[in-house]
Amino acid sequence: MALILKNCRYLVTQNDTRDILEHADLCIEGNRITESRKPLTGDTIIDCSRHIVLPGLVNMHTHLGMTFLRGAGEDMELHDWLAQKIFPAEQKLRDHEVYRWALHGAREAMGFGTTTVCDFYFFPFSTAKALEDAGMRAFVGGDVQDNPTAHAQTGGDALQLSAHFIETYKDHPTITPVAYAHSPYTCSEQTLVAVKNLAVTHQVLFAMHLAETRYEVDFCKKKFGSFPVEAMARLGLLGKDTVLAHCNWITKDEIKLLDGTCVAHNPVSNMKLASGSTLPIPELLAAGVCVGLGTDSVASNNNLDLFEEMKVAGLLQKFHRWDPAALPVQQILDMATRNAGVVLGKPLGVLMPGHLADVIAVELRDHLLPIDTSRVLNHLVYSAKGSDVVLVIIDGKVCRMSS
Amino acid sequence: MALILKNCRYLVTQNDTRDILEHADLCIEGNRITESRKPLTGDTIIDCSRHIVLPGLVNMHTHLGMTFLRGAGEDMELHDWLAQKIFPAEQKLRDHEVYRWALHGAREAMGFGTTTVCDFYFFPFSTAKALEDAGMRAFVGGDVQDNPTAHAQTGGDALQLSAHFIETYKDHPTITPVAYAHSPYTCSEQTLVAVKNLAVTHQVLFAMHLAETRYEVDFCKKKFGSFPVEAMARLGLLGKDTVLAHCNWITKDEIKLLDGTCVAHNPVSNMKLASGSTLPIPELLAAGVCVGLGTDSVASNNNLDLFEEMKVAGLLQKFHRWDPAALPVQQILDMATRNAGVVLGKPLGVLMPGHLADVIAVELRDHLLPIDTSRVLNHLVYSAKGSDVVLVIIDGKVCRMSS
Repeated sequence: MALILKNCRYLVTQNDTRDILEHADLCIEGNRITESRKPLTGDTIIDCSRHIVLPGLVNMHTHLGMTFLRGAGEDMELHDWLAQKIFPAEQKLRDHEVYRWALHGAREAMGFGTTTVCDFYFFPFSTAKALEDAGMRAFVGGDVQDNPTAHAQTGGDALQLSAHFIETYKDHPTITPVAYAHSPYTCSEQTLVAVKNLAVTHQVLFAMHLAETRYEVDFCKKKFGSFPVEAMARLGLLGKDTVLAHCNWITKDEIKLLDGTCVAHNPVSNMKLASGSTLPIPELLAAGVCVGLGTDSVASNNNLDLFEEMKVAGLLQKFHRWDPAALPVQQILDMATRNAGVVLGKPLGVLMPGHLADVIAVELRDHLLPIDTSRVLNHLVYSAKGSDVVLVIIDGKVCRMSS
Repeated sequence: MALILKNCRYLVTQNDTRDILEHADLCIEGNRITESRKPLTGDTIIDCSRHIVLPGLVNMHTHLGMTFLRGAGEDMELHDWLAQKIFPAEQKLRDHEVYRWALHGAREAMGFGTTTVCDFYFFPFSTAKALEDAGMRAFVGGDVQDNPTAHAQTGGDALQLSAHFIETYKDHPTITPVAYAHSPYTCSEQTLVAVKNLAVTHQVLFAMHLAETRYEVDFCKKKFGSFPVEAMARLGLLGKDTVLAHCNWITKDEIKLLDGTCVAHNPVSNMKLASGSTLPIPELLAAGVCVGLGTDSVASNNNLDLFEEMKVAGLLQKFHRWDPAALPVQQILDMATRNAGVVLGKPLGVLMPGHLADVIAVELRDHLLPIDTSRVLNHLVYSAKGSDVVLVIIDGKVCRMSS
């Protein structure tokens, strides 16, 4: 028995040739995409003749447990905001609250067409449970830093919690554990290296924040005597199983050091927190660095809509570089789909036989018209909204469908 | 008989004290807001207990007839894009096509919570008819420039058409005519002055594009021997009945000259076309300049969602100025509501007795939660989408309502 998306008005496969097919069928059996075939008795058919069908979007960097902080303090200086609004609220967090808000965030993200999230926060067991209950595919890392936090009093405690989490979830079908160190300004060298070793031992991804602000560059120069990426390279933290969030403030020499490492770009959060620079995406892509897209938490976004994030990603590169040709739409959609599959080491983000069946459909509403094949990607990146998503399939299961 | 929005969960009045009322009623009689009163037989009641009710949004700068160009060419250099995609398509335009696409755009904008648009394009009679048929409040100007266009062979022809349009619509209840000159790079001094004189004669607003790009600054230095705003001031084009679109590239001295003049800010379009600078909003507001918000056309946006425009307006000021406290949410909402009322000289953008009944309601969906009074504006500016709008009232009439 198959699930067949019948007569997709446009089917954006995101395979190597980047075809956009017209009036095509997409066939799903179990949790995989299979070769198209004629419907048989028992198959489920969904008519997609008014839809653009594309790979489910991948949010490469978020903190869903922070959803309770949405809109809690705006228009503040970064350090006032952290000290007065974010840190005090987070100190009092408990595991059941992280579950509740991660579930809320997961449902919001899924409704907007996100089928995979990479989440990093306190109480990873609560986050993982929420994402499993929501039916979301996820990569989850428990926060490790040296400061006392809601879920661990010391860096050692946090590391132990993270190790326990990774061991528990390492064979889970849809929740993949990640080893996560918060940042160079909250972790000692020893802690950073210990988290990376944990990743290597268990063959999981290693993730951290890096080079988000000028302050952090200055901090790294003082602490490590070098720029952020240089310092992390020297500690052996980089490479193809490492995902760095932000990297707004990096030099050309640091780009060379990123060879093989992946970067999660968060343009809305970076703009809202006034980072002042942004990820040099064209130079990174030219250097072969894999770039994905994230929303960061709703405390600095303030929603979980990757369609909005794609649009802002394009606007920001064009504006910042004084170049309307910067970051073409295909590269933006790649960041939210197929690149993420490469980063995460799973057959995600491409709608071809053999790949995981994470699929969404966008309805062709007024603001997506007129349309023809040459405009499909333009509309997806610059006109569409998460709220246009009417069908969400994750791991072969229909999670959301509206008429 | 009244229309009563009953028990509004939050009522954002945008009056001088900027109150956000909880569990309040809003009473409408005819096309005006009136003092709240108990329902009587024959009144229409709409339950708003799950809604934020706020003034309808005002799009201060758009070209709805260009809706057919949505997504027609992206990621191109500005002058290639204009020469290869926009101008050739516009040369072939006919009046019935402008009607069709203006109607399409009006319905899109209205669905996203816009209740008034200021539209400037070819075939103003077609645009006005479309906006009237859509039930939208509008300010409409016919394009005047010296180049041959789809609706006029010469600047003189265009001026005559504009005069005829203004005379025809000057007493219309919901469509207000505007005298519109395209820009300093498409109009001679004589044409610019003639359009301003037309505005003065008929006591209507005068509108034009100004200081959008560095190219234009350079052009004005060569053509007029001075910066754009200085040149327009010398021609007598500025003052309280003038609305300038863009003004990204202006000096401190030019800000002084803008005293009383209004500016329409279009952040998405400016970013997408890589203007490289942006409107210095804090300095303008400090100088008492009234600033409104526009989407520009969908050819450079690519939709008509002012909620998205509000978000990008905030993000852009914060990012460009390296200041997360720049442009607080209240100022952003003002730009899309009450400031526009001041610019347009109508009792718009404020939900107080005596004002025109242009009202919208946003449903409290997942991405607008959690909420309390202190978060209402933050959510409207940074989390909400046009697609959250479930009720649109224009001139006292219910134009859109969904459950």
